[in-house]
Amino acid sequence: MCVVSERIARLRPSVVREILAAATSPGVISFAGGLPAAESFPELSMAEVGPALRQYGLTEGEPELRAAVAEYLKGIGHDVPAERIMLTHGSQQGIDLVAKLFIDLGSSVLTESPTYLAALQVFHLFGAHTTGIPLGPQGISVDRLRAHCSSPQAKGSAAPRFLYAVPTFQNPTGAVWSEPVREQVAALLDEVGLPIVEDEPYRELAFDGDRPVPVSARLKRAPFVYLGSFSKSFVPGLRLGYLAASEELFTVLVRLKQAADLHSNRVSQGMALAELQSAGHLERMARLRELYRGRRDSFEVALERHFGDLARWQAPRGGLFFWVELKNPIDTAALLPAALERGVAFVPGVACYPESEAQSVAVGAGSTTAAVSGHHHFMRLNFSHATAEQANEGLARLASLIREQGRR
Amino acid sequence: MCVVSERIARLRPSVVREILAAATSPGVISFAGGLPAAESFPELSMAEVGPALRQYGLTEGEPELRAAVAEYLKGIGHDVPAERIMLTHGSQQGIDLVAKLFIDLGSSVLTESPTYLAALQVFHLFGAHTTGIPLGPQGISVDRLRAHCSSPQAKGSAAPRFLYAVPTFQNPTGAVWSEPVREQVAALLDEVGLPIVEDEPYRELAFDGDRPVPVSARLKRAPFVYLGSFSKSFVPGLRLGYLAASEELFTVLVRLKQAADLHSNRVSQGMALAELQSAGHLERMARLRELYRGRRDSFEVALERHFGDLARWQAPRGGLFFWVELKNPIDTAALLPAALERGVAFVPGVACYPESEAQSVAVGAGSTTAAVSGHHHFMRLNFSHATAEQANEGLARLASLIREQGRR
Repeated sequence: MCVVSERIARLRPSVVREILAAATSPGVISFAGGLPAAESFPELSMAEVGPALRQYGLTEGEPELRAAVAEYLKGIGHDVPAERIMLTHGSQQGIDLVAKLFIDLGSSVLTESPTYLAALQVFHLFGAHTTGIPLGPQGISVDRLRAHCSSPQAKGSAAPRFLYAVPTFQNPTGAVWSEPVREQVAALLDEVGLPIVEDEPYRELAFDGDRPVPVSARLKRAPFVYLGSFSKSFVPGLRLGYLAASEELFTVLVRLKQAADLHSNRVSQGMALAELQSAGHLERMARLRELYRGRRDSFEVALERHFGDLARWQAPRGGLFFWVELKNPIDTAALLPAALERGVAFVPGVACYPESEAQSVAVGAGSTTAAVSGHHHFMRLNFSHATAEQANEGLARLASLIREQGRR
Repeated sequence: MCVVSERIARLRPSVVREILAAATSPGVISFAGGLPAAESFPELSMAEVGPALRQYGLTEGEPELRAAVAEYLKGIGHDVPAERIMLTHGSQQGIDLVAKLFIDLGSSVLTESPTYLAALQVFHLFGAHTTGIPLGPQGISVDRLRAHCSSPQAKGSAAPRFLYAVPTFQNPTGAVWSEPVREQVAALLDEVGLPIVEDEPYRELAFDGDRPVPVSARLKRAPFVYLGSFSKSFVPGLRLGYLAASEELFTVLVRLKQAADLHSNRVSQGMALAELQSAGHLERMARLRELYRGRRDSFEVALERHFGDLARWQAPRGGLFFWVELKNPIDTAALLPAALERGVAFVPGVACYPESEAQSVAVGAGSTTAAVSGHHHFMRLNFSHATAEQANEGLARLASLIREQGRR
């Protein structure tokens, strides 16, 4: 074997990749992936996609689509000019660009704990040490965040490079940061000058009405990158997302995008623009929310039926996941092989935790594996992909497996 | 400003980016970019793209398209199973993935000298030191390559990680490595175990018939990554390319792709598959070559007319560029602002050179800026984008500017 980069040693076979592979086997009911409901996808057409979009294009993306995204963001309270919006190949690419922008080997990155597992994978690939800030039903712990930003350890070269967060319908917990938490975090970021990378792929999947203004929209000084996606509200197979960023970061992100793949697919961009401008767009978004609300509700009925005595959860107000805590502290990662044998896939909670957790200022980074292992009895269950019948059957199988384990 | 990664300091504003921006101003005749002729693009249709392709897909790409690419590669003498082919967002993304795979800060990378400028940008961004191996009309200098692979300096941690090369219709020179050079380089790579990254975006644009078997197809042991593109033979706006790799590298590249953007656009993949399987595909490829051959020929007539006494060049047998050497050693980078003022854009040769050039074993890396500066009087001229009339007018303006400079 030839010599590869040191980062490849950190590219471990991901448990999630293996789950997703197993989950595609025939007969397996998968609660593992974050697949949108295929019924929600509109028909795609070339009718509104001009022939000029076949040529190479601008790295930032199509001006009309950037303007339409700026208009959308303005509507949700985020006033970013079109000149600071760039189309990406999915919001996952936004995470890759952010990692390139901020992370050196050993850099400290703050995340919610738990957080989006594929973001952790990218941050680790680039050599970051990730520290989780505890997350409650109202959002991230502002006290812990403040302590971590202003501790002596957090100064100088060990200072965190940025906070990565999914404040709206969080992955995996479904939590929505409250208004006060958003205000306090924005004020803290402004005070200490810490950039935020705010990832909001689920914003359009709001079932109970509330969609508070993004955290990055409340900043006065701190740098930010806001990541959006067309995968949940439009068509994931097109791999289209976008980012908006503060002025000092945007130009660098454009250059990184150019080096990564020149620019995003222009035909996808034409289709997304046609969708945003179509007369039926807002109505389609309303139907989308209704579809997912129904899936969530029927999933919860099945959860109550099979897990009522086994687990605790909070029904998510948006997004794609239930975050389920077993009352009996069974290690869900250890449970997974048996679950796959019975044809049910899920994501074990432990995959969603950063390396260490900011318990207090004194603990610092690297010493709190124990804190993480306190979360082994969680599972992330996707409710959007399986039909109501499949969900009921899959949860029944899973509950019966957990009961057997509990009796041992 | 917040703290960004050390690599951002290497992300210099690229001269090429500025040229391309200037080149889009109205009235500017651009020989700068590598834009395919828009007349060559087929109509795009959703007719053959199934609705299932709207959902998230496999990181490696669509199985049918991977099989079709394997079939194509077999036809050009490269026998790679479909299981080791992955679709990418353009072959530029293949270069990004290769950089992630191989490059640590300070790693040595070998390239042809001159070479593809955006590959240099990515390698430098990831912290590589690039050393150029001289390129002649028959291909890379095998002696220099051998000396560089087996010198005492090239052992241990300073050993080159890989050779990056564009052996067929090279960018920028248009050179085609001869059969003996291909055989000798393949034997040398096998002998020393050096991986090759072989970039072949122009293979389908062969005007004079010859398309020798790729270098990586001749390897018996050495690892390889082969990069292909649909941008020149199909539609660049779709941002679709592919890579084929030897077994030990492929799995790692798939994981890197997953972290970068999950998978490539599936609708683009459906369209590319439909094109490859269409009854008229081979005929379209023949017409494409005819179109570009005509452009090359009329460009050369205009070059003869205006530059006959000013410059030397070798008409390219394929690809998109003339590589022009001024007889009077005028610095073409210094010439550029005046050229842009007169409404003509081109790429100055110096942008295509790696940091140092392997003059001999003794010289080693880092000491040969002089060698590079010996190439300041080259220009890369794209012939595929401008019409014959524009090309004639643009070359006339450029020649008159050069004559004025020469009289000073």
